[in-house]
Formats: sequence, structure tokens, C-alpha cells
Amino acid sequence: MVQYQARLDASFFALADVTRRGVLELLGRTDASITDLADKFRMTLTGMKKHIGVLEDAGLVATEKIGRVRTCRLGPRRLEEELAWLEGQRRLWDARFDELDNVVEELKAKEQSHARRKKE
Amino acid sequence: MVQYQARLDASFFALADVTRRGVLELLGRTDASITDLADKFRMTLTGMKKHIGVLEDAGLVATEKIGRVRTCRLGPRRLEEELAWLEGQRRLWDARFDELDNVVEELKAKEQSHARRKKE
Repeated sequence: MVQYQARLDASFFALADVTRRGVLELLGRTDASITDLADKFRMTLTGMKKHIGVLEDAGLVATEKIGRVRTCRLGPRRLEEELAWLEGQRRLWDARFDELDNVVEELKAKEQSHARRKKE
Repeated sequence: MVQYQARLDASFFALADVTRRGVLELLGRTDASITDLADKFRMTLTGMKKHIGVLEDAGLVATEKIGRVRTCRLGPRRLEEELAWLEGQRRLWDARFDELDNVVEELKAKEQSHARRKKE
């Protein structure tokens, strides 16, 4: 359970940056070297290495050094737990709002029956 | 577009903490005062106020002060953009893996036909 929470902490933190989300979108299409990614996102190599480190820690990106080039590809984690958490939360909220709607409907019905009784 | 990215930055950052996710889960069921939340999560009032501030900045929680009590409830943002981003990313990845599967299948087919030709 602690590990599950730590995984969610790491991956949501990794997603909380526009460049890191962009890197994931790009790697969803094709593998790329850190140099390519730094060029693409107009960033220093050091800056991009830091972002890749955060994504790697979250298991969202894997890297492999072949010769002098470090290539990045999608990692072993597939954002499934994150999707499941968000979907669960949405279900909870929808249920909550349906409940509030019911309360409002009940109040309306009571008011109408009260108004009717007053008329009679 | 910049605002959209800033919203995602703020909300994914807000989700990157087990206590803040717990607060959202709890508020999905019922409204609560900051004092209640601090008790529930065994945290100082100051600590909980900081977490609520992060959730408020992301639009995920709204607070209202009535008398001396500040009550928290779900905010105007419903995590829809975050869900949509994750779902889009997953579609991209699935497509990528299907593509890789196809490449593997093609290679296998080529190998088999090559082996057959050798036999004949």
C-alpha cells in the first residue's frame, strides 16, 4: 500500500511539468536520445537530463546507453494506476452530485406539496 | 493553451501527495472543516492549511469561512482535463505497442517464408 502511494506520488509529480508531459507524448510516438529531446524542447542537456531522471524515477521512461548515446523510451509503468485513481475519484464525485440533485428534487417536491396544501 | 498547461501543472502537482489525494477522496464523500481534516489525517492545522492551499490553487477544492469555521468542499475543477490527458497518452502508447507487435509479426512471417524457401 505504501509502495502504491509512493508510485502515485512519483508519477503525478513527474506529470506536473509541461516539458515532462511533452517528452512522454513524444516518446509515445518514437524513441529519442537525450540530445534530440534537449534540442526539441529548446533546453540545455543538463536541464533535459534532470527531467528524464524524474520520469525514470517514476518508471515512466527507461533509458539505455549505447556507445555515447543515451536513448530514451517509454518505461515499464503505463499510467494505469493513475488512470484508475482518477476514474475512481470521478465516480465518487458523480455519485455525490447525483445525491445532491436528489436532495434538491426532494426539497422542491416538499415545497410544492406545502404550497398546494396552503392553497387548499 | 498556456493556461491549459498551467492548469495541468497545478493539478498533477496537487495530486502528487498521499494526504492531498486522501483529502480529495474524503471530500468526494462529504464536506469537512480544516480542523476535521487535520484531525483525520493526524496533522497540524498549519500543515493541513498548506495542503488545502495547494488544492485550492489547482481549483480542486473550494473553501468558505462561516463564523470561525473554514469548510472545505470539492472545487470547480473535476479532473476532466487530467483524465483526458492520461487517456490520450494511453491510446498513443497502445497504438505504439500494436505497431511494434505488427513489426514483430512481419519479421516472424518473413523468417518463416525464408525458412520454407530454404527447405524447398
